[in-house]
Amino acid sequence: MNKHNLARYSEPADEQALKYNGTVLLTGHDAEAKRLEIRDYFHKTFTLYERLFDCLADEQAYLTKATPLRHPLIFYFGHTAVFFTNKLHVAKLIPQRVDPELESMLAIGVDEMSWDDLNEAHYQWPSSAQVKAYRDKVRQMVDDFIMTAPLSLPIQWDDPMWIVLMGIEHERIHLETSSVLIRQLPIERVRPDDLFPLCDQVSDRYPDNELVDIPGKTMRLGKDTDDRLYGWDNEYGEQIVEVEDFKASRYLVSNGEFLAFVKDGGYQKPQYWTEEGKRWLEYTKATHPEFWMVEEGDYRYRSMTAILPMPWNWPVDVNQLEAKAFCNWKAEQSGKKIRLPSEAEWQCLRQQLPTDLPDWDMAPGNINLEYWCSAAPVDMFACELSGGEKIYDLIGNVWQWTETPIDGFSGFRVHPVYDDFSTPTFDGQHNLIKGGCFISTGNYAIRDSRYAFRRHFFQHAGFRYIESDSKVKIDSNPYETDDLVSQYLEFHYGDDYFGVANFAKACADICIEEAQKAGITGDNLRALDIGCAVGRSSFELARYIKHVDALDFSARFIAAAVELQKAGLKRYVIKEEGDLVSFRETALQDLGLAETASRCLFMQGDACNLNEKFTRYDLVFAGNLIDRLYSPAKFLSMIHQRMRPGGLLILASPYTWLEDFTDKQEWLGGFKDAVGENQTTLDGLHGVLDQHFERVGEPRDVPFVIRETKRKYQHTLSELTVWKFKG
Amino acid sequence: MNKHNLARYSEPADEQALKYNGTVLLTGHDAEAKRLEIRDYFHKTFTLYERLFDCLADEQAYLTKATPLRHPLIFYFGHTAVFFTNKLHVAKLIPQRVDPELESMLAIGVDEMSWDDLNEAHYQWPSSAQVKAYRDKVRQMVDDFIMTAPLSLPIQWDDPMWIVLMGIEHERIHLETSSVLIRQLPIERVRPDDLFPLCDQVSDRYPDNELVDIPGKTMRLGKDTDDRLYGWDNEYGEQIVEVEDFKASRYLVSNGEFLAFVKDGGYQKPQYWTEEGKRWLEYTKATHPEFWMVEEGDYRYRSMTAILPMPWNWPVDVNQLEAKAFCNWKAEQSGKKIRLPSEAEWQCLRQQLPTDLPDWDMAPGNINLEYWCSAAPVDMFACELSGGEKIYDLIGNVWQWTETPIDGFSGFRVHPVYDDFSTPTFDGQHNLIKGGCFISTGNYAIRDSRYAFRRHFFQHAGFRYIESDSKVKIDSNPYETDDLVSQYLEFHYGDDYFGVANFAKACADICIEEAQKAGITGDNLRALDIGCAVGRSSFELARYIKHVDALDFSARFIAAAVELQKAGLKRYVIKEEGDLVSFRETALQDLGLAETASRCLFMQGDACNLNEKFTRYDLVFAGNLIDRLYSPAKFLSMIHQRMRPGGLLILASPYTWLEDFTDKQEWLGGFKDAVGENQTTLDGLHGVLDQHFERVGEPRDVPFVIRETKRKYQHTLSELTVWKFKG
Repeated sequence: MNKHNLARYSEPADEQALKYNGTVLLTGHDAEAKRLEIRDYFHKTFTLYERLFDCLADEQAYLTKATPLRHPLIFYFGHTAVFFTNKLHVAKLIPQRVDPELESMLAIGVDEMSWDDLNEAHYQWPSSAQVKAYRDKVRQMVDDFIMTAPLSLPIQWDDPMWIVLMGIEHERIHLETSSVLIRQLPIERVRPDDLFPLCDQVSDRYPDNELVDIPGKTMRLGKDTDDRLYGWDNEYGEQIVEVEDFKASRYLVSNGEFLAFVKDGGYQKPQYWTEEGKRWLEYTKATHPEFWMVEEGDYRYRSMTAILPMPWNWPVDVNQLEAKAFCNWKAEQSGKKIRLPSEAEWQCLRQQLPTDLPDWDMAPGNINLEYWCSAAPVDMFACELSGGEKIYDLIGNVWQWTETPIDGFSGFRVHPVYDDFSTPTFDGQHNLIKGGCFISTGNYAIRDSRYAFRRHFFQHAGFRYIESDSKVKIDSNPYETDDLVSQYLEFHYGDDYFGVANFAKACADICIEEAQKAGITGDNLRALDIGCAVGRSSFELARYIKHVDALDFSARFIAAAVELQKAGLKRYVIKEEGDLVSFRETALQDLGLAETASRCLFMQGDACNLNEKFTRYDLVFAGNLIDRLYSPAKFLSMIHQRMRPGGLLILASPYTWLEDFTDKQEWLGGFKDAVGENQTTLDGLHGVLDQHFERVGEPRDVPFVIRETKRKYQHTLSELTVWKFKG
Repeated sequence: MNKHNLARYSEPADEQALKYNGTVLLTGHDAEAKRLEIRDYFHKTFTLYERLFDCLADEQAYLTKATPLRHPLIFYFGHTAVFFTNKLHVAKLIPQRVDPELESMLAIGVDEMSWDDLNEAHYQWPSSAQVKAYRDKVRQMVDDFIMTAPLSLPIQWDDPMWIVLMGIEHERIHLETSSVLIRQLPIERVRPDDLFPLCDQVSDRYPDNELVDIPGKTMRLGKDTDDRLYGWDNEYGEQIVEVEDFKASRYLVSNGEFLAFVKDGGYQKPQYWTEEGKRWLEYTKATHPEFWMVEEGDYRYRSMTAILPMPWNWPVDVNQLEAKAFCNWKAEQSGKKIRLPSEAEWQCLRQQLPTDLPDWDMAPGNINLEYWCSAAPVDMFACELSGGEKIYDLIGNVWQWTETPIDGFSGFRVHPVYDDFSTPTFDGQHNLIKGGCFISTGNYAIRDSRYAFRRHFFQHAGFRYIESDSKVKIDSNPYETDDLVSQYLEFHYGDDYFGVANFAKACADICIEEAQKAGITGDNLRALDIGCAVGRSSFELARYIKHVDALDFSARFIAAAVELQKAGLKRYVIKEEGDLVSFRETALQDLGLAETASRCLFMQGDACNLNEKFTRYDLVFAGNLIDRLYSPAKFLSMIHQRMRPGGLLILASPYTWLEDFTDKQEWLGGFKDAVGENQTTLDGLHGVLDQHFERVGEPRDVPFVIRETKRKYQHTLSELTVWKFKG
């Protein structure tokens, strides 16, 4: 390791160098030059982050909680360094931790999702000097790692150097979120710092907002895996969205514009607020934006390091619930369909800016710390639209809330070294913020960045409203975490194990083949998939059969099948080892099932007490059902009444009779019969079915494997029999 | 079908033909002649059985229960016909039952094993005429089947005709057991019949018994699968027994000889009785043999159809408990080691008779209904021993109780069409009776027949006593019916499934290989197999390692391993479908493990609290253990103290952590650690073990399959790691 070079970075960094926060390209031709560039970017980031804490007035400031729901800043001071250690260690790139005790104290942040109390008694914080000493050690370790790690270009997400970039970008996230916490500290705990200047263009005059026409278009969201910039896992993949024409407000909503809502009693009028908004109002008793301060009956403004006269011409900082309430109020006032933009609509606007962080000389907005460490007037950074109109703050100043909860794009894969970065936010409750703010740097400042927070959460974030006739289509695709449902999703849609082919598909293929052999063809076919679970065999049957009723007793299974049908994809979590999980996604498109999926009608139902509307079937398939019914004979002895003459009943079952599901007197077989002889289930099936059915061909084994963990599987042989309705 | 031929047999059969009860050979050269021979044997048997019921005085006799623990005779009248239908039907040789309702009523006998009450309310018996009409139909059906079934010679046990022979021999068993029930009916319910004459040689003089020298020899018990006579499944296989010289009583114990025991208060002196015998005495309050009747202060004798003056010169009829008590009394009286013979000792005597049922012209004993349908004097049927001495009643007259509980011979296989004929009796509680009695015919009368009854049960059975210094070695090998133990026996010793090699053996092989690589060799090696379950890996390790301590927390598992070690074999029951089971047997000899099995010391023990005597190991193997411990870290952090320097610790586990077994705070991995990163179990193993161990080589997967039913399996990948003790 080159100690000499490191020394340079241990010195207070050059101010101008720190303020140029360009990012690093993954591409290039000179790996060793790239290594030095990354090293430079690392030290600049590490130093810049430490310099932010110079805004804390004293040691007490490190220990003061900015909000009851977050750790004090001492935690965050150390946390970004700990992150480097942890991720390099978990990726098995460094042999040991730097300081296990301190690292266990500074590793786990507090999820902004919870309104629960933090019990301070659990924490014994180190001093800032201790943390600084720790940071120095980590700086040395990471520098050493950067200088010795294998490196080839382009850098890819399973490369060791990717972990370094992950650590750097993680630190840049915390540069911003810590600045929010500093902004929330008591003013006496903070102090101004020249590296983080505040804008002085404060006015009580603010522009009247107007709506500007924006032509719609087809947007392709998501980036490719060979993108030149580092990305978090949620940025990759693809989503195609049709954006209709809309109008967008020329300016971000200023404090001045927002005041009208406050004065009109907006915070007191429940009609403008969502249910979630009302709950938040009830909890916080808020009457105005978070960073507005009432002093002697007048509003003043809290910036990161100072209290200012109210800058009515700066953008308002609000959470998503407040922004949405304002839009509803504005809609009522104006009689227009005012709302927040969707992610796609925002990107449609963003396309008007031809440049992105790595390319610009000077930022086209108040971003990347290139101007101030505060907001600035909403009419300062203009962009001329293709039509000639001007629109302001397309990026920067403050983040812009959207209507869109974050979700993975199609093709989303979890990065294994940080598997809980994105997935916990795919719950429909974390909305995207776009565009970055004055202190957004690195990945935070690029076009494709995707961050989302709970809707009640504060960042340096405000909003632009739009007018549109179209509704925002919200796909919520949370990870299925119900263990059994997830297990079945993997069983139906996941990988093959031990070379055993997909069971639901194999059975459906046999059904189709047998139907064709039996001359059951045409455009008018109706099938019943009873005990369909999460629906794979139903979707497979629907490729050939016009109408498939798909029933299961479990509402949870049906719900999963319906979600998959509606969204075309379904995400789920599978167990690896103990509590550790992996994240999976299945898409009907990839299985060739998307075109015909709508032919399935999923419903909750009881095979032993079947609603009379389920009738006139050419094919009834009951896969792994009969040994889970409370009265299989009841089901089997009536099912012919629901079938068309010559129709096929196809049963598959491992005959795993268990009293948990089926009382012993209801078993079809697997016991000594009344005359003391062994009765198999196949005997029992003949006993119940022979009156109305004729068995076709020999029984055959269809194997299946259900994955319980990475190492544990159920491996079972289902016996499939085909029965032709004689009626 | 030749109706003409059948007609012949529907007529009352020729008396002499009925009385010649030779049996049918399985061998021959003329299949069609054999067919007619079998047909003849069937009709003779069927008719003879019906004729026995002519001894019932009236319809009431059919419905009178001879003992509270058995059905009335109407059941047995129909039962032997039902048996033909059931077995042909379950073997899928006939398309349908003859009379399902009647068959369900007459199929299931009452197990003589139980002293429980029979609730008569459950039974609505048919009339004897109804049953006779049913029997006629079955006779027709079986005749038809015999005349049309495929037949090639020799007849083998999976041939259709074997089922016919099974039905015939089953009927001949009931011929005898029904005669016992008739003997137990009130005398006014029975009547004499010329076909079943009583012996008239009744005397109050009986011979003094004496002991005759019998030279010991090596006996080979069991018959080959190509034996010329039909056999029940329990007759096949092989057992080699060394019989030491002994003396045998010249005569069966006569009523006269037994009287001395009665007069001496034998039934009142607990010292002569086993615990089971005392319980039986307590329950029955017996004071003399069952068929002795006290009339006006004098003993009289109950034969099947008459009450006779006491034939003091006939053999006494007793159960095994009484016979054994008599021997104990006799031993005390004589100062000699008097006891009942073992099965092998009895066969050693039996060898003195050169002939067997198919060969003799006239029976060399009161057997096969060739003389009487009652016992006869004990000094009537002599056999001259090779030494010139005479011994009486080697076969026939009454059955002879033995000391030996019935067990399958090595190589025993259950006949699939009658899977509960033998296996329920392999419980150590059913003792063999040998030699047959006056009414024993067919298979009952042959040398290799093996029947066993609960020791308190009555047949036409008495005993011969012997004097011997040797003790009877009793191997009790009941079928393991504990579900989990059986599942593990199959896992350790049973078949391979899905092509996955035996796990316990595979692990032991790796252990040996790793030990050899590590230079752990020599005659002084000590291994610990901890979590040994039912012991396969312990036995495998013992092939190379002189001393193997084998511990498991489960006493049930250890008990099974110890039984296998002691007996060399272990039987168990595995689930097929529902409650249906199959019977398996494993023998250490077949696995090449018999020679070294004694090197294993099986003990119950707790891996987390290991007794200090378990120490100085060169090899510690823990297979599928650590994720079932309540504190795996406790085990792993102390185990080096029990190892010799350079010793190997070999772990195999699928890391299936479950809170049922291991509190979450005790898991070694499978969770997010204190710093929020994924900790795998392998990480956790390093954390606990690295201080004292060095990991050798890479972890490897060793798959295993546990069979739950015929169709359902657990298929799991265990991760095997090798750790060398640095100490």
